[in-house]
Parts: sequence; C-alpha cells; structure tokens
Amino acid sequence: MSDLPKFVTVQEEGPREGFQIERGPIGTADKVRFIEALAETGLTKIDCVSWVNPARVPGMADAELVARGIRKRPGVAYTGLWLNTAGFERALRMPLDLVGSLIVSCSETFNLKNSNKTIAQAFDDQIATLRLYKQHGVEVRWGTVFTAFGCNYEGEVPLATVLDRCTRLLEIAREEGVQLKGLYLADTVGWANPRSIQQRIGVVRERWPELRIGLHLHDTRGTGLPNALAALQMGVDQFDSSCAGLGGCPFAAHKGAAGNICTEDLVFMCHEMGIETGVDLDGMIECALMAERIVGHPLPGKVMKGGSLTRFRTVN
Amino acid sequence: MSDLPKFVTVQEEGPREGFQIERGPIGTADKVRFIEALAETGLTKIDCVSWVNPARVPGMADAELVARGIRKRPGVAYTGLWLNTAGFERALRMPLDLVGSLIVSCSETFNLKNSNKTIAQAFDDQIATLRLYKQHGVEVRWGTVFTAFGCNYEGEVPLATVLDRCTRLLEIAREEGVQLKGLYLADTVGWANPRSIQQRIGVVRERWPELRIGLHLHDTRGTGLPNALAALQMGVDQFDSSCAGLGGCPFAAHKGAAGNICTEDLVFMCHEMGIETGVDLDGMIECALMAERIVGHPLPGKVMKGGSLTRFRTVN
Repeated sequence: MSDLPKFVTVQEEGPREGFQIERGPIGTADKVRFIEALAETGLTKIDCVSWVNPARVPGMADAELVARGIRKRPGVAYTGLWLNTAGFERALRMPLDLVGSLIVSCSETFNLKNSNKTIAQAFDDQIATLRLYKQHGVEVRWGTVFTAFGCNYEGEVPLATVLDRCTRLLEIAREEGVQLKGLYLADTVGWANPRSIQQRIGVVRERWPELRIGLHLHDTRGTGLPNALAALQMGVDQFDSSCAGLGGCPFAAHKGAAGNICTEDLVFMCHEMGIETGVDLDGMIECALMAERIVGHPLPGKVMKGGSLTRFRTVN
Repeated sequence: MSDLPKFVTVQEEGPREGFQIERGPIGTADKVRFIEALAETGLTKIDCVSWVNPARVPGMADAELVARGIRKRPGVAYTGLWLNTAGFERALRMPLDLVGSLIVSCSETFNLKNSNKTIAQAFDDQIATLRLYKQHGVEVRWGTVFTAFGCNYEGEVPLATVLDRCTRLLEIAREEGVQLKGLYLADTVGWANPRSIQQRIGVVRERWPELRIGLHLHDTRGTGLPNALAALQMGVDQFDSSCAGLGGCPFAAHKGAAGNICTEDLVFMCHEMGIETGVDLDGMIECALMAERIVGHPLPGKVMKGGSLTRFRTVN
C-alpha cells in the first residue's frame, strides 16, 4: 500500500446529490441547516444545489433560496452544478463559489438522457461554455467524464472511449487557452470494480502524468468503498462523496441507483489507514444522523450506525 | 493486483448469524426454506444454526427443528456453531455436517462475554474439546481467533496477542496429534481496516507460510468489503459472509453491531474482478430478497438493490 496518499480531499455532494432525488419535499431551512453543519466539520468544498430544470428535478426548485440562505464560513467553497448555459446563468446570480468543469459522458445515450445532447453536441457545447466561463471569470479546473466505467443503457464502456473523451476535453481546453488541472472519472451508475478502477487510472495517468485524477463513485453494487481503496492504492487523493450516502442519479434508468460513496465511511477508512482528510469524523457522523432525520428514512451510511472507534480507544 | 486468487470459497453465515439476532420470531419453515434456496446457488458450506443457550439467544431455540427440516443437497456442507461441549453434544445428535474448530478470542473480556471463560480457561477448554472431537470422529480443520483486529471492550488488540493466540491453538492441535489446515482471523466487531488486514495477514503468513488463511469480517463501519479486497490482494481465498448482510453479534456490547460482509456483494466484486466463486450471483440475489421478506425489514446488501450487471450486458 506504498502509494497511499498522505492527505485526501473529500468533496461533499450530499446536499446536491442527496436532496435532488428524495421524494421529499425537503424544507429549504433543513437544507441550509445541513449545509451549515457540514461546513463545521472541516470540509473545504460542499456541492449545495443543482441549477437544473425544476420540472425534471423538483427537489432543486428552491436552489436560489438555499444558495442565498447559507451563512458562509471562510475557507469553505459552496458550489453548485449546472448542465447547460441556462443553468449557469442562474448560478451566476447566486452568492456561491462557481467552479467550471468541462463535462461529457462516455455513453451517448446517457448524455442524451442527462443533458439532452449527443456527444458531438456536448463537445461543441463545452467550447461555448468554456468561452462563457472565461467571459465571466469563472475558473475551470477539471475535465469530467461521466459513465467512465460502464452504462446501464450501453453496457460496457471501452477504455478507448474514456481516452477519447479525456483527449477531446483537454484539446478543447488547450484550444481555448485553458490548462486543466485534472481529470475526474465518474462511475455514474455503479459499474466500476477495483480492477477496472486500477486499470483505467493506470492508463489515464500514463497518458497524462502531469494531471491530477479525481473520482466520483456511486455505491450501487457495494463496491463503492473497495473502488475508493483501489484508487487510494494508486495515489488518487480526491474523491466526491455524500454524507450518510445520500443520493442517487435521477437519470440512470434504474430504480436501485444508489448515492455516492458515503463521506463518513470514506473518512473513517482513510483515518484508520493513517490518511488525513481534515474532516472531523465524529462531527460528520452527527451530520449523517441529521440527514437521516431530515429525509425521514434510513440512509445507507455504516459508521453513522456503528460509531467511530474514538470512544473505545479513549476508554481503554 | 497480481496476488488475487483465481477462486474464492465463500462460507455462508446468513442463517446462523442472521436469524440469531433478529427480534423475530422467524418461523422454522422460513429458515429451512431460506437454507434450501441458498444451497441451490452453488454454495458449498452453509452455517445453519447455533447450538447456544436458547435463554440467551432465543432465535436459535428451534435449532434442532431447522437441522432436521432441511432437505440436503449433495455436495453442500450444512454446518452449525457451538461454543461449548454442551452445544457440541446437542449438535452430535443432529443430521448436520459437524466441522470442529479451535476457537479463542484475543480479548479476555469478549471471551468472557461470548463464552463465559477466561482466555486461560478457553485454551484448556480447547484441549478437552479437541479430545472430544477426536473421540467422535469430528474433523478439526481451523484455528479461529476472534477480535483479531480490535475489541469494543478492550480497544486496540496488539499484533503480539494475535500471534500468541494462533501459536497456542497450533500447539494444542499438535500436542493432540492434529494438523490444522489454516487460521481464521475474525474481525468480530468491525475494527479492521485495509492496512491492518494486510499487516496482520502478512505477519501471520510469514510465520506460518504452510497454513491457509480465512477471514470472518463484519461490516460495522463500512470497511467490510474494502477489507475483503485488501485480503484478496494478499491472496486470501476463503471468507465467511452473510446473504443480504444479515446478522450482527449479540455479545458485542454495541447496538450498531453489523452483520458479516454481504455474500452477494462479495460475490459480485469477485466476479467483476475475474475471480470465480462457484456461486450463481443472480440466484444469490434472489435469496437476499427472500431474506428481506422473511425478516420483514430492509437489509444492508447493495447489489440486491442495484441488481447484477447481467441484464445490461445481455441487452447491449
């Protein structure tokens, strides 16, 4: 395990990924309270809302109210997600930290379902979006590739497709005078396994050794945390995750679509392995219990039920 | 991942670990039906009942009825667990496959709670039990060490304690003319992490390279399957697991005590990584759904909700 990173950055997706899929309704005040509690744990980036069509994702209809309601804590980036320029233009008017990302899916069908665009249209759109970001002074750091490990609509995703998507995003950025900091591979619908994680990360890193790699993992089939471990063993040090395991993708054509890997379970595993995260585990467990009270049903996180080992170590 | 085994043996613990902790009552016919369904999946060993004090574990009061009720399938071992000679004597009268194991805990306190004996008494007891096994022609294959990674009562368990317990069990066996086939390390209360798994397995294997290593993992804090992955990477090829993640330990002093790692999630991960198990994943998912219907509440397994990838691969 010699390639384990010393520090892992955890990007919290719970408020966005989580509350967008709940049958809800989740009150705006609860969303704000949850985001404020998350910000107390040491997290440095919290994805708070989506600027998506409220007709398709009713749980995000109050995105503006949430964005305006949060008492911001210094040193924490409060971000949001948009999938098109209409969403971006709404986001621009909000008091959030806007971070641009170039995004495309490996799967044509998923891309159509998720953003109503073919892959070719998505690439053209990234050019237009990037120009818009530059015009508004919004920093663009990452290229993000959805369904990088497989797709419920199209099945296996060839490695060549992943490399094609990464290559084209990097070309688009370069042509527009932007240097991407890294590539985010998203296992959008839970197809990855520890072997495919290590194979794909290995090939991407070999091709672009100068770029950082981030992972967005869903725990649809129980391999979320093993996949994170496999990535940690390759030195990957940036993960999206979701407090209490909140979430699921509304466009995955799959009723069993699960949320991201669970933040506090990931943090627990990292800490136990000697990897720092800057996150207070017991505080994050409190947030997970708050999330469960807010949504009103059990959430999949484990350490929120098992508890951290702190008290056992302190007592003995 | 070059040390991955080609084939992993999965020992099903669900009926025993699972039904002993349910507030129940679970009907005897349901238990029998579940065990019979499990036997159809390709499993070769199913732990069916505990011969424990029904006053302490009421869910096992019908152990005799279950054992006698199962229509046995050739090639499947239907086993049970006992913690003392009284339990063994009950087991002897049953139509089950009796496999003896030498058992001791690392933690003195856990050993007292689990079997009402000090460690010294437990070792003495193992000698007496081994003689009893020989007398009745019951094969003894494994030495099993409970709380090998930590204990809720005693905190961290030193590696030296694990080695002491293994050494003494092997000595006892040798003194009685029995050659143990391997050592089972049990993370009884969910303290292990991938690093401690690899460290402890590494040291045990270095000390006894001729012995097989098995793992009994509980998923109390979300690291169950990452721990299994870490062990697979060391070539470990035998795991206890529990269909749907049924279970929990009644003596762990811990209301959040979780069950074993989930059988079908482990099987899914292995198959996706190219490791065979001999288990039909879709059949095992059906068993998990049956278990959920029997206990009448959601169970923690993931792939039983997310589904296997078979249908997506077939369609496309």
